[in-house]
Amino acid sequence: MKRKSLPLSQVYRLLEPGPVVLVTSARKKQINIMTMSWHTMMEFEPPLIGCVISNRNYSFELIKTTKECVLNIPTVELLDKVVACGNTSGKKVDKFKTFHLTPLPASRVAPPLIAECYVNLECRVVDTKLVAKYNFFILEILKAWIDPKKKKPKTVHHQGRGVFMIAGKTLKTSSHMK
Amino acid sequence: MKRKSLPLSQVYRLLEPGPVVLVTSARKKQINIMTMSWHTMMEFEPPLIGCVISNRNYSFELIKTTKECVLNIPTVELLDKVVACGNTSGKKVDKFKTFHLTPLPASRVAPPLIAECYVNLECRVVDTKLVAKYNFFILEILKAWIDPKKKKPKTVHHQGRGVFMIAGKTLKTSSHMK
Repeated sequence: MKRKSLPLSQVYRLLEPGPVVLVTSARKKQINIMTMSWHTMMEFEPPLIGCVISNRNYSFELIKTTKECVLNIPTVELLDKVVACGNTSGKKVDKFKTFHLTPLPASRVAPPLIAECYVNLECRVVDTKLVAKYNFFILEILKAWIDPKKKKPKTVHHQGRGVFMIAGKTLKTSSHMK
Repeated sequence: MKRKSLPLSQVYRLLEPGPVVLVTSARKKQINIMTMSWHTMMEFEPPLIGCVISNRNYSFELIKTTKECVLNIPTVELLDKVVACGNTSGKKVDKFKTFHLTPLPASRVAPPLIAECYVNLECRVVDTKLVAKYNFFILEILKAWIDPKKKKPKTVHHQGRGVFMIAGKTLKTSSHMK
């Protein structure tokens, strides 16, 4: 797959519909993947994302310390791996090796992209004011990558208790909203 | 439709997949509806929601002042009204009247429920620390209502430029995630 640079102004169109993302983080030789659904856009450009990363997760310390991560958006073909990443801890498991995911070097941050995901968003933590109380991080997206061949990506949307909604058809309306 | 009370512990299952919501707010005789996609769960129970309400919106002042709103989740049958609410300002238009939506009294807050929506979440603003910088409000859900007859709700998920993704089929996995 040949990855294309995506203009930062277009990132909201990918995250706003609420897909599950895989968050990669790294510190020295530690490297991890976390499954996450609690995120929202906060600004169009530069794109800001707010997200909850529980302090019970191994990724919490990595991201809090290094202030870097990558948000990778998987499609339904990867659902088994998405679930596996969510059901295990990086404290015990090297998730890249165990679940056969491929790390690729990022351009602006240390944590790797996940090659199998159709979108990769390189992020820096820019605000930690709500981390102590809510585990809420604000990320700025520094660089965005997309697989231009993926025309109708079937993203997965978590509904709890093992159930995921798969992205259905799209409708074009006369909306003037950005 | 007979609305059923939904346990607060189940709210995350509705908002986590990223549906567009219609936000109702009210102050004295002013009443408004706003279309919103920038929201995320922040805590399971009591359910906390973080959301961005732009200060360019008429709803911003209403919600900032009264500290109350209702999040109503529409399905695809309402998409035209969702778009209409997003394309107009409550400063000029009474959206309930103009778009033929039905206000119902809420139980815990002043703003009305929208009868046509299959879910209604009555909210109080509990944290405004990030409002000045990011227009970011933290809401606690006080009371949740659902139409128990709506089995496979086709929620709508905004992708920008007039395009909406409609909720597709669901898959059950072996995930142990809550």
